[in-house]
Amino acid sequence: MRPEEARPRLAALGFGPEDTETLAAHFLDAEARGQLGHGLSRIEWLETWEAIDTGARPHRVVAEAGYERWDGNGALGYLTLGAVVAAQLAAPPERARLAVCSNTFPTGSLGYWVRQLADGGLVALLTATSPRRLGPPGGGEPLAGTNPLAIAVPSSDGRPIVADVSMGAVTYGAVLAGHAQPEELVPFGGPQAHKAFALAVGLQLVVDALNPADGFGAVLLVARPEADPVPALRELAGVVRLPGDRSA
Amino acid sequence: MRPEEARPRLAALGFGPEDTETLAAHFLDAEARGQLGHGLSRIEWLETWEAIDTGARPHRVVAEAGYERWDGNGALGYLTLGAVVAAQLAAPPERARLAVCSNTFPTGSLGYWVRQLADGGLVALLTATSPRRLGPPGGGEPLAGTNPLAIAVPSSDGRPIVADVSMGAVTYGAVLAGHAQPEELVPFGGPQAHKAFALAVGLQLVVDALNPADGFGAVLLVARPEADPVPALRELAGVVRLPGDRSA
Repeated sequence: MRPEEARPRLAALGFGPEDTETLAAHFLDAEARGQLGHGLSRIEWLETWEAIDTGARPHRVVAEAGYERWDGNGALGYLTLGAVVAAQLAAPPERARLAVCSNTFPTGSLGYWVRQLADGGLVALLTATSPRRLGPPGGGEPLAGTNPLAIAVPSSDGRPIVADVSMGAVTYGAVLAGHAQPEELVPFGGPQAHKAFALAVGLQLVVDALNPADGFGAVLLVARPEADPVPALRELAGVVRLPGDRSA
Repeated sequence: MRPEEARPRLAALGFGPEDTETLAAHFLDAEARGQLGHGLSRIEWLETWEAIDTGARPHRVVAEAGYERWDGNGALGYLTLGAVVAAQLAAPPERARLAVCSNTFPTGSLGYWVRQLADGGLVALLTATSPRRLGPPGGGEPLAGTNPLAIAVPSSDGRPIVADVSMGAVTYGAVLAGHAQPEELVPFGGPQAHKAFALAVGLQLVVDALNPADGFGAVLLVARPEADPVPALRELAGVVRLPGDRSA
């Protein structure tokens, strides 16, 4: 699929102009960053779905100063996270806020969402569950999703740091896009895969424990920074590429 | 050092009875779990310090419903985390609370602290910074501490899940205890060490951005669970050992 096909093909699936824009922006950004498994291949994947409720709207169920709960309410997870991020930017927390998202799948490139928050001046951590595909390193049933953890920290130099790490050695998106085999979808780390497995299980249970609904969900923490550590780290790093930087 | 020496030797350093108990309980638990780098060897390490302000008390600087800030105020990080954990258990958040800890070092086995929160019914995530010892996988200056992420989720069966993952292939504690060489202290993951490096940098910056003071710090998220996912995961896992379980 060529980039210019993204919007027309999303519109053809029935999405309205605003949702088409939200979705296309996510897929095109992933494609531009080389995250092909989160990119345009996902539009082809959506085209294989039997039905998509393109009129569904995510709903904010609880709105408190330091806590929000959202329900995807039948909308694609991308659109739920898009709405949650927009709401945090529109009304940032005084100090910190936890946002728990029920019925939120698929969520795409988590780094994309937290980068928007960091661009808006907020520290953000985001994780999300997906079908159980990671088994324990010693072998056994899949117990956890690839459950990425994305972290973004704003910077006064306008270049936030964005770490976005899936606990899988490859992403399911890479399998979908034909860049990896299903049997490569194990916790990353080789002989130390027990560490990525532990993180995947821990993040899975955090989402499952905070989300009152069954099914997939996401948990987002946003907080106002009290300091500006990124420029000093960039100076220390010199020419080293830091997480989230585009390749030279 | 034999376990029964822990309390007398801590008392000999000048710690009062309550702090001696907090410290000894942490070191003895680490030792019992085989985390020797966080165990009794740390008492010998404390004995090499030029001075320890054993009268210092951690101080809660900000106390809001969903946010606290603490300052170690010259006390050992272990004691600061002990006080923060006790405060959360004494007055749990209605929904969620972020606790940012300044001047908090050393912090020990983060899994030990979050386990106490999960035993008290709270979901907890904790990270903490330490001296920069992890360089980028391609080589270069150390840019991040080993910055563990510890996650604990309570369970109605009384057996919480506790994931506690250092981003280093070995811990500095293991180096201190003579179980690993300094050159082994790199991001874990072998060919995928960029993932552990990204997490270490991300967690470093989260702490450094939320902590208004210079120096080492810790960030703790506590939240009330809305669901009880651990028993079902244990059933799915069967005989597989889950994060934080003791070895058979």
